[in-house]
Amino acid sequence: MYACCPSDVLKAREVIRGLAHVTPVMCCSSLSQISSEATDLPTTLALKCELFQRSGSFKFRGASNAVMSLSPEQALSGVCTHSSGNHAQALALAARSRGDCPAYIVMPSNSPSIKKVATEGYGATVIVCESTQAAREAAATEVAAKTGAVFIHPSEDPRVIAGQGTLTLELIEQIDQVLGPRSEKKSHPFDVLVVPVGGGGLISGCAMALQSLVPEGGAPPLLVGAEPSEAADASRSKISGVLQGHLDGKTPLTIADGLKTTLGPNTWPIVRDFVDEIVTVSEEEIKRALRLVYERAKLAIEPSAACGVAVTASPAFGKVLRARLPPDTLSSVLRGDRRLRIGVVLCGGNSDYKA
Amino acid sequence: MYACCPSDVLKAREVIRGLAHVTPVMCCSSLSQISSEATDLPTTLALKCELFQRSGSFKFRGASNAVMSLSPEQALSGVCTHSSGNHAQALALAARSRGDCPAYIVMPSNSPSIKKVATEGYGATVIVCESTQAAREAAATEVAAKTGAVFIHPSEDPRVIAGQGTLTLELIEQIDQVLGPRSEKKSHPFDVLVVPVGGGGLISGCAMALQSLVPEGGAPPLLVGAEPSEAADASRSKISGVLQGHLDGKTPLTIADGLKTTLGPNTWPIVRDFVDEIVTVSEEEIKRALRLVYERAKLAIEPSAACGVAVTASPAFGKVLRARLPPDTLSSVLRGDRRLRIGVVLCGGNSDYKA
Repeated sequence: MYACCPSDVLKAREVIRGLAHVTPVMCCSSLSQISSEATDLPTTLALKCELFQRSGSFKFRGASNAVMSLSPEQALSGVCTHSSGNHAQALALAARSRGDCPAYIVMPSNSPSIKKVATEGYGATVIVCESTQAAREAAATEVAAKTGAVFIHPSEDPRVIAGQGTLTLELIEQIDQVLGPRSEKKSHPFDVLVVPVGGGGLISGCAMALQSLVPEGGAPPLLVGAEPSEAADASRSKISGVLQGHLDGKTPLTIADGLKTTLGPNTWPIVRDFVDEIVTVSEEEIKRALRLVYERAKLAIEPSAACGVAVTASPAFGKVLRARLPPDTLSSVLRGDRRLRIGVVLCGGNSDYKA
Repeated sequence: MYACCPSDVLKAREVIRGLAHVTPVMCCSSLSQISSEATDLPTTLALKCELFQRSGSFKFRGASNAVMSLSPEQALSGVCTHSSGNHAQALALAARSRGDCPAYIVMPSNSPSIKKVATEGYGATVIVCESTQAAREAAATEVAAKTGAVFIHPSEDPRVIAGQGTLTLELIEQIDQVLGPRSEKKSHPFDVLVVPVGGGGLISGCAMALQSLVPEGGAPPLLVGAEPSEAADASRSKISGVLQGHLDGKTPLTIADGLKTTLGPNTWPIVRDFVDEIVTVSEEEIKRALRLVYERAKLAIEPSAACGVAVTASPAFGKVLRARLPPDTLSSVLRGDRRLRIGVVLCGGNSDYKA
């Protein structure tokens, strides 16, 4: 059994309805063209804009699903977590939205200042710690013991995983309106979904959402993870078939600050069994994608979100598509009958402004 | 008679339908709150996102209306203009969209490089000149004489003015869906429209669009121009009642590169008679607004667009609202019955990325 199953995502959608925004899906012909050139396949990207989600990232979905699932007594004791920033803000806002629910947030000292300021702005108590996984966990445990707050893990909590998956349910409903109707009615609304991978909560939830809606006689879309080469624990885990941590246990050096965490006991089995492939990108590729999205799509995304776009603009992604897509999909695309429909999750927009 | 009348805007909408994007309207609770605090009035901002327009700014509306209005013979000779950048890109793209229509664009040497690169990318021939109004006009005249191209002025051309106004027609239709239904059915969908002013083509078109749809027994929304203090020719013109150029004829020093131009013979009468007030903002206020929109709304706007947001976050704007709004609107807002509905035109998103 997996920690989260498709019906959990469907339930989460009802729980967070009206609390979380239904975020827009946008297209950008320049980005689609760049992806088409890099992959040598005609592609159209549909950008799921979670940067416009409340608290500035998809994390609000999982956090609010978790907070709304608490009993009144639990809520009164509050919630706590450790987070590099986006889950921190999201949990703080989810707790405030519920009311009568204090939030205690452990944040590593190297979190972007915009994320710390926002977390406090949402009324949470912020505890700063060293930027190692061990220090974060120790500080959160201490806070939970002291306050009685319920610990909500940023990626392992099943309610969090289920909440994150709701964005894929929305995308499935939105994409035809944005990209136009499909030529093959029986097919899935899109062919590929690209999702950044840090702790794996997002991609696990998305995997379950895709499983919930496999068309009769069809296959789910290809699910591709996007990871910085500098923090490629999920990629190495997939290749070896065994859950891996970071190399030498060191905190990775990547500008994608949201993707420094590792898979865990709940996310790894889902990633292992339902994610088709993980593509890694260099820091230079992530920086280039940040610039492209800013200049061409006019969206202020954070580096973690750029990681997904960088994958779509990489020749490695083209190889994955050719190797993994169903033969009939690939042949109709190569014949020029239609373009590949690729969903890309722009997971967040919380980065410091540069004047 | 004015150079552009309400029916011209309605016609332009049909001409550019399917060519120009219907851009989204977005809300951002942080920005609305900042405006509410600065004005001491409960306001909700509805951001008309022309940064997502084709070519990255509203200018594509006017340019495509002008280009599509040419006869086949005129189109073959091509179009020319001078522009600091956004009209340049827009005209280049409009000409390419029509096909068989060359574009010759005079650009001042200090245009942002992203705008020059994009203009060439759309297939136009770019002629660089000194960054004075006189040098721009001389170079454009020379090009027109040499090539036979039709000169399309960035703000004075009536077809351009009419095209720009179409964004306000869209906003009128979109705003209820974004802000929710109005409590007073007879009122206009919004109370105030804030529009940046450079050459005045945009605000003139918007003024005519508002005139086209005044509800029976109601008044049009308050139309407020937003101008940098460093380029306050329109503000000084309005105050004196006489068209003014820049002080000492000098090119103004403002980061809002799209707002350095001045009103002219076609835009001035419309601005004089249909714009209620022009509010000026300092360079510091524009920079702060740029940062706010990036960090809170996650939108990569250019400084000219930030100028409008800066106005909504200024106490001076609050004074204008109190002085100018209809008494019944003001009293229902002050009683707390409803919030002021303020449309803000985010006119473009073409600025260089800062790594």
